[in-house]
Amino acid sequence: MTEKPDRKSIPRLSGNDYDPGIIRERQDFVARETGVTLDHVTRFSYEPEILKGNIEHALGVAQVPIGLAGPLVIDGEHAKGEFYVPMATTEGTLVASYNRGMRLLAECGGIRTTVLERYMQRAPVFHFDNALDARSFGAWLEANLDRVRAAAEATTSVGKLSHIEQYGVGPLRYLRFNYTTGDAAGQNMCGKATFAACEWIMEAYDGKVQRYTLSGAIDTDKKHSQLNTLHSRGARVVAEAVIPNEVLQRVMRVDTERVYRQRHISTTGSYLAGSSNNGPHAANGLTALFIATGQDVANIAESHAGITYVDLLDNGDLYWSITLPSLIVATYGGGTGLATQKECLDMLGCYGKGKVEKFAEICAATVLAGDLSLSAAVLAGDWVSSHDKYGRNRP
Amino acid sequence: MTEKPDRKSIPRLSGNDYDPGIIRERQDFVARETGVTLDHVTRFSYEPEILKGNIEHALGVAQVPIGLAGPLVIDGEHAKGEFYVPMATTEGTLVASYNRGMRLLAECGGIRTTVLERYMQRAPVFHFDNALDARSFGAWLEANLDRVRAAAEATTSVGKLSHIEQYGVGPLRYLRFNYTTGDAAGQNMCGKATFAACEWIMEAYDGKVQRYTLSGAIDTDKKHSQLNTLHSRGARVVAEAVIPNEVLQRVMRVDTERVYRQRHISTTGSYLAGSSNNGPHAANGLTALFIATGQDVANIAESHAGITYVDLLDNGDLYWSITLPSLIVATYGGGTGLATQKECLDMLGCYGKGKVEKFAEICAATVLAGDLSLSAAVLAGDWVSSHDKYGRNRP
Amino acid sequence: MTEKPDRKSIPRLSGNDYDPGIIRERQDFVARETGVTLDHVTRFSYEPEILKGNIEHALGVAQVPIGLAGPLVIDGEHAKGEFYVPMATTEGTLVASYNRGMRLLAECGGIRTTVLERYMQRAPVFHFDNALDARSFGAWLEANLDRVRAAAEATTSVGKLSHIEQYGVGPLRYLRFNYTTGDAAGQNMCGKATFAACEWIMEAYDGKVQRYTLSGAIDTDKKHSQLNTLHSRGARVVAEAVIPNEVLQRVMRVDTERVYRQRHISTTGSYLAGSSNNGPHAANGLTALFIATGQDVANIAESHAGITYVDLLDNGDLYWSITLPSLIVATYGGGTGLATQKECLDMLGCYGKGKVEKFAEICAATVLAGDLSLSAAVLAGDWVSSHDKYGRNRP
Amino acid sequence: MTEKPDRKSIPRLSGNDYDPGIIRERQDFVARETGVTLDHVTRFSYEPEILKGNIEHALGVAQVPIGLAGPLVIDGEHAKGEFYVPMATTEGTLVASYNRGMRLLAECGGIRTTVLERYMQRAPVFHFDNALDARSFGAWLEANLDRVRAAAEATTSVGKLSHIEQYGVGPLRYLRFNYTTGDAAGQNMCGKATFAACEWIMEAYDGKVQRYTLSGAIDTDKKHSQLNTLHSRGARVVAEAVIPNEVLQRVMRVDTERVYRQRHISTTGSYLAGSSNNGPHAANGLTALFIATGQDVANIAESHAGITYVDLLDNGDLYWSITLPSLIVATYGGGTGLATQKECLDMLGCYGKGKVEKFAEICAATVLAGDLSLSAAVLAGDWVSSHDKYGRNRP
Repeated sequence: MTEKPDRKSIPRLSGNDYDPGIIRERQDFVARETGVTLDHVTRFSYEPEILKGNIEHALGVAQVPIGLAGPLVIDGEHAKGEFYVPMATTEGTLVASYNRGMRLLAECGGIRTTVLERYMQRAPVFHFDNALDARSFGAWLEANLDRVRAAAEATTSVGKLSHIEQYGVGPLRYLRFNYTTGDAAGQNMCGKATFAACEWIMEAYDGKVQRYTLSGAIDTDKKHSQLNTLHSRGARVVAEAVIPNEVLQRVMRVDTERVYRQRHISTTGSYLAGSSNNGPHAANGLTALFIATGQDVANIAESHAGITYVDLLDNGDLYWSITLPSLIVATYGGGTGLATQKECLDMLGCYGKGKVEKFAEICAATVLAGDLSLSAAVLAGDWVSSHDKYGRNRP
Repeated sequence: MTEKPDRKSIPRLSGNDYDPGIIRERQDFVARETGVTLDHVTRFSYEPEILKGNIEHALGVAQVPIGLAGPLVIDGEHAKGEFYVPMATTEGTLVASYNRGMRLLAECGGIRTTVLERYMQRAPVFHFDNALDARSFGAWLEANLDRVRAAAEATTSVGKLSHIEQYGVGPLRYLRFNYTTGDAAGQNMCGKATFAACEWIMEAYDGKVQRYTLSGAIDTDKKHSQLNTLHSRGARVVAEAVIPNEVLQRVMRVDTERVYRQRHISTTGSYLAGSSNNGPHAANGLTALFIATGQDVANIAESHAGITYVDLLDNGDLYWSITLPSLIVATYGGGTGLATQKECLDMLGCYGKGKVEKFAEICAATVLAGDLSLSAAVLAGDWVSSHDKYGRNRP
Repeated sequence: MTEKPDRKSIPRLSGNDYDPGIIRERQDFVARETGVTLDHVTRFSYEPEILKGNIEHALGVAQVPIGLAGPLVIDGEHAKGEFYVPMATTEGTLVASYNRGMRLLAECGGIRTTVLERYMQRAPVFHFDNALDARSFGAWLEANLDRVRAAAEATTSVGKLSHIEQYGVGPLRYLRFNYTTGDAAGQNMCGKATFAACEWIMEAYDGKVQRYTLSGAIDTDKKHSQLNTLHSRGARVVAEAVIPNEVLQRVMRVDTERVYRQRHISTTGSYLAGSSNNGPHAANGLTALFIATGQDVANIAESHAGITYVDLLDNGDLYWSITLPSLIVATYGGGTGLATQKECLDMLGCYGKGKVEKFAEICAATVLAGDLSLSAAVLAGDWVSSHDKYGRNRP
Repeated sequence: MTEKPDRKSIPRLSGNDYDPGIIRERQDFVARETGVTLDHVTRFSYEPEILKGNIEHALGVAQVPIGLAGPLVIDGEHAKGEFYVPMATTEGTLVASYNRGMRLLAECGGIRTTVLERYMQRAPVFHFDNALDARSFGAWLEANLDRVRAAAEATTSVGKLSHIEQYGVGPLRYLRFNYTTGDAAGQNMCGKATFAACEWIMEAYDGKVQRYTLSGAIDTDKKHSQLNTLHSRGARVVAEAVIPNEVLQRVMRVDTERVYRQRHISTTGSYLAGSSNNGPHAANGLTALFIATGQDVANIAESHAGITYVDLLDNGDLYWSITLPSLIVATYGGGTGLATQKECLDMLGCYGKGKVEKFAEICAATVLAGDLSLSAAVLAGDWVSSHDKYGRNRP
């Protein structure tokens, strides 16, 4: 920090901004301006050249500890077998807790995973003189979907425009373009394609448009929304498992009925609070996985949302499912190819093309393991210290 | 990934689990089980001993690129002066965009920042036979707040119990304990204190309690909620600035009126979508700062929420404010003391005790810079390619 | 009220339960059981026979005062001209306030109205063994939409199945059947058609369904929801008007800019509160119209939702729009044919077939008149008593 | 309806606007302008003089059929015994369905009811130059609560200011004044008191306030909000009952376990949809009661919200609770004293002072009866026609 009156510009090169020299110059700049000598931020193990497209004003790296959890046993459509999951976090007990959940579920025969759908969005808004013009435009758009699609898809060899949601508000028409995006998360791809589509629309539509803006906020990029929960953003993926009462009692010291009932109280609390997720802590596992594997970690804002649905089977076993409606992941592009990030994806057999559904399934399975583990732990603590002591009789 | 039938346990030591030997053994285990040789994950610059309490089953590190943005000029209560902000991300253009916003706002005289309040929560739920018992308990709790406080605060030298929210639903009493937690984020501190308070309550209360659970889900830990937006979680902090029209036009090629009107369309879209934040992308800047500085990054789930409120002043200048109601940060404890993380906090003059409000202000100011930058960019693109061409007359 | 141990049954006839004799018997029963002699409830002006299908255990009538407001000047697609609006309420000032808004808007050239879409829903949920089965079912349903439609439409000469929304959660598939329903609100029509469709599905689908339930709660019948706001329930209808600053100042003593700015503060408050409507009081006008015209008044739960979007035009005039996304109305069936109710619909030229869009437009225009009137009144009070006195300079 | 170019004013008298002559003149006006002769709207059984303060431009009455349901057996704090409930509706089967639920619950020993709290609100917003000024004001307000209270309470002999919620957003301070209001709903009382308090604040506060507005939309008057669900508006009241499996099976042909499980599916659907009530149809019963008893029916917008929480007891009995967080009712003032309305309140022993909690309890008990009845009916239909036929094995 500096309080000097003359503001200094961060050094940069117009030629190769990833030259080790200019990075060192920035480190010197930091030393000069803030008084901090960077001993650790400077230690990275790769050629900075690979950072092109991932960072500007490169200075060094954050070293985030990775712990290993597993085996995570999955019987999914895309992910099958045992996985050892790299989790990057600085929060003590997180890896241990997920690891415990994974081992418990391995004993139960593993986790089923299913990707229900997967789309990425860009959501422009068109402004008209009045609601009637806006409605007419909506009808035209629907009638001309094929041509809009052609304009959008001309910008990308991967992205395919699936469908466009429309929401009318006064003189505004909020649109939500839904694309399939291969193994990339696809936000940029969708942005470019939608921009091209909008420009084409402005040329082709002969009604009067006052203006359009490429984002009318219902994307809803980098934030949670009820709309995401309803209509997905990224992958909508389910992980589910059946936990025998005997196993839960032995490993976690709570019975399934107790967990089942508590779930309803937590869901009621989540409903009361207007919460984005009625489960325990999806964000923890997802964030650790995201950092380790080069995902866009800011997408935790969307990805942490979830709906837990449980059932107590007639035999006393507990069925548990978690639906993540807006899990945004990639196995290609973005940060996935960086040094440590690629290694972590490789550990999961998830680097590169054709792997994104597999990775989405691993994410959901990880969440399930962590949610079960924390739920049981909260209740076991309760069980031991309070419940037994007071011997209350209603669940 | 492995599909072998016999599940292997991850190597660990009961003695010192951070011994370099055991870490190497895990790396060998990964090579054996997944076929991946870790060349980069293994390269960290510190003694693994410092990881104690931050990670289990330590395997190595994720190297996340850090870019530098600034100067960020702040005129806050706790943060004053020019800051160079380390942002850890793998998303191209992110640092450049925040940097641009920071420089624009520096030209405008900087950003004002204010922490409105700061609390951390734990939210147990108490179950009763019926609603009347639950209500009676609530009245008792209010009458005995001092004794509850004493029980809670006996567990911590730092945390202070400020107040307890109560929400009645049928036979349940959802409580939300609010603490001040010094310079730590304080989730664990609050958990322990609330557990002690609940145990004391179970002893002291002579009415009938069926059971209590330490979390009834309205904390709402690691997820967004309307309750957080209303009642804060962590810091409720505001960043605000006035942007002269001349500066915005020169630097960003849009005028303030255009930005102002678009804000209302975005807010309307956010309201329609049921979104956690009516601004552009708070999550991006916060996540990059969180990773760099050793915050609990999973708290992006809560921290990304926000309310943007703007005004167009009579002279055509744009007033912009962002309120982050649930920003969870720490400058002490957790991951803040790790090698690269501490260096980054030091760059901001924010490591250690007495710094957390300052750091919260820097976070909010960073968000404001990024939100303004992206908003203007979206509109400038629109402006150039569409708006001028079609010359539509209504904003 | 009675506290006698032997519970008395309300008198009823299995033959003609609307016979004046049995109604009188019930009135005697009330006198006997509660000690209340009904002097007014008993005075209705029609043959009770017409109540068949509208009420059970008929006892008499509530006499709800009707006031007259207008002229409401509308330039809609279906409603055109001047209307005198019957409003049934017991709340003083309500009619006067709406009347004032209507007259103000008449001076401004009236209100434009547009029905964006109109559907009624029934939303069954199908349960499966797991998420994969649920997804497969969803795909099958989409592929067999024509046959599902045929099964549904076989039950009704009016209702047409437009489309089915699908939402996957774990092993559950929540469906939302959307119908056009002619001039009826159509809840029952949709219920029967969807039941037939579901029964057909259970026969035709060869995958395993565990069970289905006719409502999985996402209808969302008789309650507000974000889903309604997004995807409409009943009519999605817009009313919009431009109010010249001169007129507003003369009639309401506030200027347009003041109203415009306050709107943003109210929208921000609505966003903060998680509110179903960011406008002033749509429920007031709608309820009064609903009671007068024999609507299902409980649908105020859904119908009161709204999104207000305003703009300040370059010439200082105020553009105001209200979008009611879930206005449930009928001009045929239900209570529309009862004695006073039909007269009130007739006053609006809205009784019977082919009138429902017209009536929906009148409802939306009424809301706009009332919202503008109340907004201006709040500010004028503020203006006079506080603002002028304290002469604060920022809006 | 008329399309004549010259707009006619509705006749009125400045002296006594409730003179039968002027009412007749309006009826003539309607005949002239719309061509509709009012034969039924004109038939009311009381002197129009009593309408003063309840309606303007009085024209006549809506006659809404009332059906009788009961006995409703309640064991509450304020309501005790058997009640026969007048329900004003035009929706066939509604009374029959509620009646069935009431009789079922009478067999189960009746319904327990509890008012958890009861407040009415007015929510002004204060605008400042910046967030720091807004925060300072908030602190001053808290420190001066007694003086604010004195100013507010000077305007009313009934209303008492309980507490003020504060929510900070940028330069705005949203306040929510909470009052107890005796047996009136109290909206106007709160409006006047809060206005007086605000005016006093503007005099007394020596910091700079830019402006205040009497409503900043978080009241949230005449609309649902998450804030209401959290912090109540009007009465927060619970009705609860235990239904033996044997009774449910005999009367409704479903077993308790089936109902219990379906509840969780409905709650999950409600959570998915972002719904205001996870129960079946509170709005139906409340609206019918509200119309019959002279409540402000537009408050159904708020009052229909609810949280259903159920439990399956060890003996197979079903515990069911409904919490209505924002039930707005009155037994005095408003429309409660009108002719039929007063009779209906009298039937419940609820007219006049000291009765409002009793009436709130009757409302909640009515909702419970209707919710149970509809839930069971939906499932019984399912049970008979689908479930038995297909013999699916999982619930």
